[in-house]
Amino acid sequence: VKAAVVGATGYAGQELCGLLRGHPALDLALPMRGRAEAPPSEGVLALDTDRFGEVDVVFLCTPHGAAAPLARLALDAGAKVVDVSADFRLKDPAVYEATYGAPHPAPDLLDAAVYGLTEHARSQVSGARLIANPGCYPTSVLLGLLPVLEAQLVERGTPIIADCKSGVSGAGVAPTATTHYGNVAGNFSAYKVGQHRHTPEIHQAAGTEQVVFVPHLLPCFRGILATLYLTPILGVGAGQVREALAECYAEEPFVTVRSDRMPNLHDVDLTNQCHLGVAEAYGQVVIVSTIDNLQKGAAGQAVQNANLALGLEEGLGLG
Amino acid sequence: VKAAVVGATGYAGQELCGLLRGHPALDLALPMRGRAEAPPSEGVLALDTDRFGEVDVVFLCTPHGAAAPLARLALDAGAKVVDVSADFRLKDPAVYEATYGAPHPAPDLLDAAVYGLTEHARSQVSGARLIANPGCYPTSVLLGLLPVLEAQLVERGTPIIADCKSGVSGAGVAPTATTHYGNVAGNFSAYKVGQHRHTPEIHQAAGTEQVVFVPHLLPCFRGILATLYLTPILGVGAGQVREALAECYAEEPFVTVRSDRMPNLHDVDLTNQCHLGVAEAYGQVVIVSTIDNLQKGAAGQAVQNANLALGLEEGLGLG
Amino acid sequence: VKAAVVGATGYAGQELCGLLRGHPALDLALPMRGRAEAPPSEGVLALDTDRFGEVDVVFLCTPHGAAAPLARLALDAGAKVVDVSADFRLKDPAVYEATYGAPHPAPDLLDAAVYGLTEHARSQVSGARLIANPGCYPTSVLLGLLPVLEAQLVERGTPIIADCKSGVSGAGVAPTATTHYGNVAGNFSAYKVGQHRHTPEIHQAAGTEQVVFVPHLLPCFRGILATLYLTPILGVGAGQVREALAECYAEEPFVTVRSDRMPNLHDVDLTNQCHLGVAEAYGQVVIVSTIDNLQKGAAGQAVQNANLALGLEEGLGLG
Amino acid sequence: VKAAVVGATGYAGQELCGLLRGHPALDLALPMRGRAEAPPSEGVLALDTDRFGEVDVVFLCTPHGAAAPLARLALDAGAKVVDVSADFRLKDPAVYEATYGAPHPAPDLLDAAVYGLTEHARSQVSGARLIANPGCYPTSVLLGLLPVLEAQLVERGTPIIADCKSGVSGAGVAPTATTHYGNVAGNFSAYKVGQHRHTPEIHQAAGTEQVVFVPHLLPCFRGILATLYLTPILGVGAGQVREALAECYAEEPFVTVRSDRMPNLHDVDLTNQCHLGVAEAYGQVVIVSTIDNLQKGAAGQAVQNANLALGLEEGLGLG
Repeated sequence: VKAAVVGATGYAGQELCGLLRGHPALDLALPMRGRAEAPPSEGVLALDTDRFGEVDVVFLCTPHGAAAPLARLALDAGAKVVDVSADFRLKDPAVYEATYGAPHPAPDLLDAAVYGLTEHARSQVSGARLIANPGCYPTSVLLGLLPVLEAQLVERGTPIIADCKSGVSGAGVAPTATTHYGNVAGNFSAYKVGQHRHTPEIHQAAGTEQVVFVPHLLPCFRGILATLYLTPILGVGAGQVREALAECYAEEPFVTVRSDRMPNLHDVDLTNQCHLGVAEAYGQVVIVSTIDNLQKGAAGQAVQNANLALGLEEGLGLG
Repeated sequence: VKAAVVGATGYAGQELCGLLRGHPALDLALPMRGRAEAPPSEGVLALDTDRFGEVDVVFLCTPHGAAAPLARLALDAGAKVVDVSADFRLKDPAVYEATYGAPHPAPDLLDAAVYGLTEHARSQVSGARLIANPGCYPTSVLLGLLPVLEAQLVERGTPIIADCKSGVSGAGVAPTATTHYGNVAGNFSAYKVGQHRHTPEIHQAAGTEQVVFVPHLLPCFRGILATLYLTPILGVGAGQVREALAECYAEEPFVTVRSDRMPNLHDVDLTNQCHLGVAEAYGQVVIVSTIDNLQKGAAGQAVQNANLALGLEEGLGLG
Repeated sequence: VKAAVVGATGYAGQELCGLLRGHPALDLALPMRGRAEAPPSEGVLALDTDRFGEVDVVFLCTPHGAAAPLARLALDAGAKVVDVSADFRLKDPAVYEATYGAPHPAPDLLDAAVYGLTEHARSQVSGARLIANPGCYPTSVLLGLLPVLEAQLVERGTPIIADCKSGVSGAGVAPTATTHYGNVAGNFSAYKVGQHRHTPEIHQAAGTEQVVFVPHLLPCFRGILATLYLTPILGVGAGQVREALAECYAEEPFVTVRSDRMPNLHDVDLTNQCHLGVAEAYGQVVIVSTIDNLQKGAAGQAVQNANLALGLEEGLGLG
Repeated sequence: VKAAVVGATGYAGQELCGLLRGHPALDLALPMRGRAEAPPSEGVLALDTDRFGEVDVVFLCTPHGAAAPLARLALDAGAKVVDVSADFRLKDPAVYEATYGAPHPAPDLLDAAVYGLTEHARSQVSGARLIANPGCYPTSVLLGLLPVLEAQLVERGTPIIADCKSGVSGAGVAPTATTHYGNVAGNFSAYKVGQHRHTPEIHQAAGTEQVVFVPHLLPCFRGILATLYLTPILGVGAGQVREALAECYAEEPFVTVRSDRMPNLHDVDLTNQCHLGVAEAYGQVVIVSTIDNLQKGAAGQAVQNANLALGLEEGLGLG
């Protein structure tokens, strides 16, 4: 079984290539640059969409907007597609346009796309040809939140705070003032408060606009930790919330509900794991959710989805 | 005007000594170790309470419990006291006992103690003999919250989330697993969720138990950033909240309400400043408050309070 | 094939357990604490030397002095031993005593011990029952130096400077002032100049006391980079030195002589690789050698040696 | 007394502006951008050479090549000049051209320029109109080496290794792959081995080409630590070398020869200090020299030189 990775020089693309090199069944046949004009570099080919027919799956790690046309070519060539960009995450093209400032590049493909938050979409992903790999922040928030919402443990209409912190690899491989060592080390900041593009994705997947998502930039390279605050319905506390999570994820190899202590970034570093913890604080239930943003938040979940879509064992090549 | 610093080898004590060495009017006469059995070290004397009479002010940077008896000796010797520990922050000795697990060591002195959140207690601090220097987390939270609560812009009974992140200097100079480089670098965690000792202090000073405070440990040395989420009363948004903050702090040299962007740790690094920012997100008003935990969160505010109490210009020796 | 790891909670021990959990042929049967009085912890058993007979190989990751008696018990129980401590590295018990301040704990076993710098001791390691795994610094220095010394390209009697820099994991998992985040981050220092215990080991393996070794502590967790300066014999420059290295390591899977640029820590991070680079500077030939101190400098090389000693493919379980 | 800073947005320029804002006698009248086409930014004016006549001293923090023409304009306008760039450090325009790849932009001014390694050029700097502020690496190397060379304690013709390590602020404020957090954190590398432009400067000031200088990039923001290895003349050891240093710097407020332990970056962080330590290792004398690269290695020494040139007390405004 063969794979192409488009955008192999970005952080998600690099991580994906690393995972595929260690994958026992999926072969990294075509690591490609993400843009037509980008020349090949060490170990990475020039973009060549004519070769999509040689592989079984194409992973797209390009910027949003650039992925959709490539997805069409790959699908036409008979390959399955896992899109790590944002192009197929939002179901409503009007929301896409409002969020990304341009018309959706392939609205006719939206119906075919499956939102691949694997643990909550396993059956759809299994048969899918086009998978929208979730954003890093949404993955961290939704894994902690969905079982609790589904169990109807959250008071309707109350705000659910998702205070999220990400390592700087989330800001990409391009050198900018944001990624300059001098601005990251010893620093910490909130950014795009009330304006981050992952918000509509969270709202769509959660089925509610109660979630107030605020991202922050950590002085480290990898990892996301989301601290979620919710108002439980009367009579419910941390115990029932933890139970709902534990029950939902009892058989999941990549999600652990800890009972010993709150999880931290090191618990999931370089793995496809999500660790969850629950506590109570002055009437709020606090859920802490941690992932490696480049693995479960991007390349790892992409491999997990590809495994499923290709009929392989879901956890192959993942730690 | 002369000062003693007890506990000069801890991080707050070191910072205080540094500030006093650059202070134009307050002379660091007696830098002392914090415990009777601790021998003198380079530039730091053994603890000698008999010498408290030689100075005008004694700064106490000891662990809680140890400060109160030293405060009594210093007051008896005629010195003013700025207690950087937690001993005189809580007005109710029962709350102290519930929080710190031991009876209050000097309940008779509690009435005399002034809670020194300087910008909100200037007149009391000016005449005070015994000042309880606020905790680092409470300082960051309260500076952002008090003016908004006083202006009655927060919906009664709704939770106010205070998601706080601190550099590791807050965990102290003692080598522990928590402060080991291998556990801090590349890591991030929530801790003592629902159980941190700064909570009663925040509740007391805010005059409400609405505040849900959760601390986190950042992979950097200095600084606190608090992200505050509140439900405004009907018709109120970020604009009015910012206005309330801007009006309250219009004349304050050490508090800045930014309108350009959200503040970050570097904005206040190595200064006694607090920077505030305000935004709106899906019905919540989000206030970001940043301080240097060792300066405005400890030694800086202690100097600011001592300046006031001793009749000096409030900002002397502070950046 | 089964393995025990004694000292599984230290950094080398943790790394070794991680490698063995991913090893296709060597099974981590007995992860044990390093000291008799240390209780079992999560996933780690109490030390139980009676069980050494259950395994084929015992890895010793204890402090020096403690390993030798354990090695004897393991050998007596029929297991092979890879000693990651310093107990069997120095051939001369008098040098051991001068270096470690105590008589050698098992001088009768010294003859049987093979110094396991794998690429330079493959045939001896293959049949060995007791392998002294080299120190982290010596590994980085010797891999860059031995082929050049063997090719007699260094001017006799001239100093060979080995300016070495290590991440803080080399200082161990115990919380000390040295490993406190506040002393590591943003800092850098030379230490034990002229006194480090790895010096006799380097001199013994290099067969000369020309090497001047000075270690430094880097503000990062993993990795060693050694910058080696040598005076070449007349007519020799960087070209011949690089050639000597390239020839020596042409078939080696774990040593790469780069010609594109000087290597850095990221090149070898989390791998068992050593990367080498060569340049000329004002008459000196400069060799830069990089390894991951916990892998090729400890646990990785230990697995490589165990693979050889047990008749497995040398690179199994290594990246 | 008034100052202009040209290039106020780079790291050296920012540091200089910070020092001047706290300077009791030198007033930061004109903080300017470094390039004609760069627009003014917050607190920094556009470059306006017509205003050089308004100040007593112009600090040039521009790239090399750009400083010389500005220096001429400033001198013509009657201001003194401290050039923090490389334009006036090398006495021989041919060496400048070989080093910087372009003809010297103002060879007629070279004679007037004083190389401002303050402790070794005090009398010349005092009367100077044009001061070439030394490079950061040369400052760290020369402060440790010059007294030893002057005392003739180094064996003639032997290599003097200067293995230097710098924080990433030395690579400048511009976002590049080199300064990207992802490439700096957890990494360490040697660079420009045998080719760094500070080498001719070191050779010129040392009066010998014995010095073999190799720079490295540390995973931290500030500071340089140079480890110097030299072959002493017969009968000389670390003791005499330390004595030579101690005697030379006995009265110097900004250079300390430590006898307690080797210095580290934290010892000199945010100060204009240089700390030196000496030890012996296998026949070599090892000198460790540490400075803050943005202070003693750039802006601090620039202020020290300006103080002298303007007839102010040398240490004014410096810590």
